Amino acid sequence: MLCLLKFTPLFLVVAVGHGWLFGDLFEKQKELDEISLWPLPQKYQSSAVAFKLSPASFQIVHAKQSTAGPSCSLLENAFRRYFEYMFGELKKQDKSRKKAFDSDLSELQVWITSADPECDGYPSLRTDESYSLSVDETSAVLKAANVWGALRGLETFSQLVYEDDYGVSNINKTDISDFPRFAHRGILLDSSRHFLPLKVILANLEAMAMNKFNVFHWHIVDDQSFPFMSRTFPELSQKGAYHPFTHVYTPSDVKMVIEFARMRGIRVVAEFDTPGHTQSWGNGIKDLLTPCYSGSSPSGSFGPVNPILNSSYEFMSQLFKEISTVFPDAYIHLGGDEVDFSCWKSNPDIQKFMNQQGFGTDYSKLESFYIQRLLDIVAATKKGYMVWQEVFDNGVKLKDDTVVEVWKGNDMKEELQNVTGAGFTTIVSAPWYLDYISYGQDWQRYYKVEPLDFPGTDAQKKLVIGGEACLWGEYVDATNLTPRLWPRASAVAERLWSDASVTDVGNAYIRLAQHRCRMVRRGIPAEPLFVGHCRHEYRGL
Amino acid sequence: MLCLLKFTPLFLVVAVGHGWLFGDLFEKQKELDEISLWPLPQKYQSSAVAFKLSPASFQIVHAKQSTAGPSCSLLENAFRRYFEYMFGELKKQDKSRKKAFDSDLSELQVWITSADPECDGYPSLRTDESYSLSVDETSAVLKAANVWGALRGLETFSQLVYEDDYGVSNINKTDISDFPRFAHRGILLDSSRHFLPLKVILANLEAMAMNKFNVFHWHIVDDQSFPFMSRTFPELSQKGAYHPFTHVYTPSDVKMVIEFARMRGIRVVAEFDTPGHTQSWGNGIKDLLTPCYSGSSPSGSFGPVNPILNSSYEFMSQLFKEISTVFPDAYIHLGGDEVDFSCWKSNPDIQKFMNQQGFGTDYSKLESFYIQRLLDIVAATKKGYMVWQEVFDNGVKLKDDTVVEVWKGNDMKEELQNVTGAGFTTIVSAPWYLDYISYGQDWQRYYKVEPLDFPGTDAQKKLVIGGEACLWGEYVDATNLTPRLWPRASAVAERLWSDASVTDVGNAYIRLAQHRCRMVRRGIPAEPLFVGHCRHEYRGL
Repeated sequence: MLCLLKFTPLFLVVAVGHGWLFGDLFEKQKELDEISLWPLPQKYQSSAVAFKLSPASFQIVHAKQSTAGPSCSLLENAFRRYFEYMFGELKKQDKSRKKAFDSDLSELQVWITSADPECDGYPSLRTDESYSLSVDETSAVLKAANVWGALRGLETFSQLVYEDDYGVSNINKTDISDFPRFAHRGILLDSSRHFLPLKVILANLEAMAMNKFNVFHWHIVDDQSFPFMSRTFPELSQKGAYHPFTHVYTPSDVKMVIEFARMRGIRVVAEFDTPGHTQSWGNGIKDLLTPCYSGSSPSGSFGPVNPILNSSYEFMSQLFKEISTVFPDAYIHLGGDEVDFSCWKSNPDIQKFMNQQGFGTDYSKLESFYIQRLLDIVAATKKGYMVWQEVFDNGVKLKDDTVVEVWKGNDMKEELQNVTGAGFTTIVSAPWYLDYISYGQDWQRYYKVEPLDFPGTDAQKKLVIGGEACLWGEYVDATNLTPRLWPRASAVAERLWSDASVTDVGNAYIRLAQHRCRMVRRGIPAEPLFVGHCRHEYRGL
Repeated sequence: MLCLLKFTPLFLVVAVGHGWLFGDLFEKQKELDEISLWPLPQKYQSSAVAFKLSPASFQIVHAKQSTAGPSCSLLENAFRRYFEYMFGELKKQDKSRKKAFDSDLSELQVWITSADPECDGYPSLRTDESYSLSVDETSAVLKAANVWGALRGLETFSQLVYEDDYGVSNINKTDISDFPRFAHRGILLDSSRHFLPLKVILANLEAMAMNKFNVFHWHIVDDQSFPFMSRTFPELSQKGAYHPFTHVYTPSDVKMVIEFARMRGIRVVAEFDTPGHTQSWGNGIKDLLTPCYSGSSPSGSFGPVNPILNSSYEFMSQLFKEISTVFPDAYIHLGGDEVDFSCWKSNPDIQKFMNQQGFGTDYSKLESFYIQRLLDIVAATKKGYMVWQEVFDNGVKLKDDTVVEVWKGNDMKEELQNVTGAGFTTIVSAPWYLDYISYGQDWQRYYKVEPLDFPGTDAQKKLVIGGEACLWGEYVDATNLTPRLWPRASAVAERLWSDASVTDVGNAYIRLAQHRCRMVRRGIPAEPLFVGHCRHEYRGL
């Protein structure tokens, strides 16, 4: 185990194997303030030599050799965003009137090396997010294959900049070579239990980028409401949203979320969870849900999607066709969790169908029957799919590129062993259900999780492509979501990005406390870890 | 047990003894939306007859017979505030341009009956907060002895107003006679573990008024920081605050808090907790704290206030003299909790003093020695004092009007029995430590507490004058305090205001869910109780 920051002075660590190289760096306590990288880069070398940055003259520019230029609006936007994070908006506007001082570091050159910088593309599971960053006198160079790595490097660069006692921006001589440990680093937000105004979603995408998360798992609809406005089936949100106008995501809202995310290197994976979790769907679509019976007559309540009607599959086929065009990501999350069989069991038509199919009384076979047909429907749209672990557990035949999401905490290791043993890629969310709050510093519990700590071969471990912090929506909405998520999710961010050896909770505490103050300064109401203060406290409520 | 609101139709309850009288009131589910009083008034009678209010012509006015008039700025401010809560700011500004419709209810007359309306006074423990409210065709009358009851009645009136499906404001024919069950209904906020910007404190005072809380227990300083700027000892905050300029409360800040609270009928009881919880005090005041010893030499760390030096008492005398003038309330909270004896035990001078005084090894006697002298100092300022329960437990001689705050959960009933048995007034905070968060609807736990459920005579029960919801500051600051406090503290508000018979959690859920949406609409980011939505969601982050 390595220890990057120490309270005791003059601590020398050289560790090449797993990633770090640094020298006589931390001469005194005070300098702790100067380094608060989060998540910690894979390879990092720094010195106490500091360069000053002048807000009036410092620039972020395209390197001459870069394949990207001013026409790359993704990078242009990112340059502006990170300039403002570092120096604030006002200073920028004052530029012409401010007297520039001689700046030790005059510019950051961003050098994209691939023939295609992917300025207009979307990030994917295969995206190369690696970058290298070198800060030395007069200029810094950020090198990446494409814009996605550049975005990660810009975040790191901005985290290296610190204010000295005079309020002057400084950066230390630094060399960084960085890449994520896991390719899928997600946040699940739930806009069904409570509607999340666009502003909240966008703010959290910003916070995600500050933590190098790259997947927004949008659990967009569920039993409680259906805020997604479908062009094909407008009645879904008209009848299924909390309110048909004020509590829906229009096609243009969805586009905005996707574009805002893309600009930050974040994939948007939408989840349309069936056949359970669909009560709100039934409001708009007649006969979609199974009528439950009380004795020999319908009780008036409804269960999961009715799996025995062709109309159900025709509906799904049309809906997912639309979804596959609305969401550009290569994956759709199909849910498949927590199917309650009691309603199916009560329904005589379902019982008859079970007999016809020879399913006996094993309703998981009926569930699989439904899911299998759904997967075929979605596969026809050329999309890949993600599913919750039950779908795998029930033995449904899955495409090779399926991502199985392990969410049950009880037998997580066994499940990971089984899923990867069967050759499927998987992501872990079981230890990171952030809706389960408790008193104290629960971020440490999230931080200590090792996703690969399960019995399996190296090949199996490689199939674990990442994880997700899930903030289910029963108890959160616009009033409390953001401070509840941050910086608790930041613990997951470092676990999924940094080297497996980065496990020192004491060191993490110091950096994370500063990182949360940085988020606060950037306008994100990230809650405190413990007692203390930020130089710039939150200005909202 | 009474049930005010029912899902089933046509429910008739007549209950005079404990407070309610109402008839064929709740004809359908929908009308639940129309009544969401919180906390529930003591006596309440309403009918389905509804009157319309026109924002363009409706007025809140002083009744002709009222002893208060336009020169009563407290009421004038309250009229404006409640007008805006009910109709919004925009509508008011549009007044001249808006066509008034014939309003069924044209005005609310506020009738103060006492010779002295107390417009420029401060609320106190003995304040009469009762009021009566009658809403009938063309006008409503709110009658109260003084402005404090009027404030409570204005809140209730504003809660009676609801929007119909056309967005028109309505109010039902209603008669209310109301008064608080307990005189001390407090919220404790802690501005030491984290500095709370003024904006946060003021917003929470607003929320307190919406819930009829009447005491802001300001735990203003503690070990971690000393943000109170003293004129007598400016070094206390200069050296003891997180930052001497950005993280302090100037005298003018404190005045603003007190006046903002006064305008809402809220007392500000400041707590300066000694002899423990004083680490930050020691930064500015030499020799105030006890030097701890490691073996035979000082360890460099410090313990509680040094109780054996005269200088300590001279300091306290001057400081509390200032405090007694800065804070107009009749009470100061002197703390006295959680004194750690280990440092005192380690110090040879303290040991010697213990011998001289004949205290043996009973350090609680030393604690009492200190507290006794402090109480005498504070009594000399003509202030009453509140103390945490340890001060009583240790047998310190207390003034008759001392309020003992019971905060330990383990033996709360026994403690209440003992404190009241000794003839002291007491407030309960043990069951209401809202900093201890947990998953789910913990407000129900707070709601179910019955403060008088302890063995004792009627005379003893009368000594329980109220309670406090405490939100200690270890894990909260401006980013998350407000949604964490509300509406969880609202559960305590109803327990302390409404009749003891108001205990139906199901009914409370319905009203509280609406009450929290009302708070949200008024700009308070009160978090959701559970799944659902508000017509007007929070617009901030």
